[in-house]
Amino acid sequence: MRVRVEIHLKKGVADPEGDNVLKALKLLGFPDVTGVRSIKVFEIEVAARTAQKARASVEEMCRKLLANPVIHDYRILL
Amino acid sequence: MRVRVEIHLKKGVADPEGDNVLKALKLLGFPDVTGVRSIKVFEIEVAARTAQKARASVEEMCRKLLANPVIHDYRILL
Repeated sequence: MRVRVEIHLKKGVADPEGDNVLKALKLLGFPDVTGVRSIKVFEIEVAARTAQKARASVEEMCRKLLANPVIHDYRILL
Repeated sequence: MRVRVEIHLKKGVADPEGDNVLKALKLLGFPDVTGVRSIKVFEIEVAARTAQKARASVEEMCRKLLANPVIHDYRILL
């Protein structure tokens, strides 16, 4: 079963990658860009019998490894 | 207008980040995980009058900065 996890920075947390992409785009001649946010996505293949079990397992992966609760929010998409 | 760009590695291109997340998950006690692919997403705010113009502009950003055509595929979502 393929599960998708999207890891966002929380609102108010600095996003240096997004900020640098924004700067670079402006320098490259895209003056109409007003903001860039970076998001990390993992597509995880899990051998689980039910969607519910897959979600619970990926939820635990987020807590244990993928997301830092101080700065990240995550969304699990099945 | 908010445009979302998803930047994937092409099939066959090594994904060391995904591979390392997979290894770490196995070490942390998730034996059911069989694969992890990493994807980079940018949410770009563009001041464009039409969706078509926003898409064309982001397409150019991908070609000029965001994606490396040798190893990346990208998908623009409006």
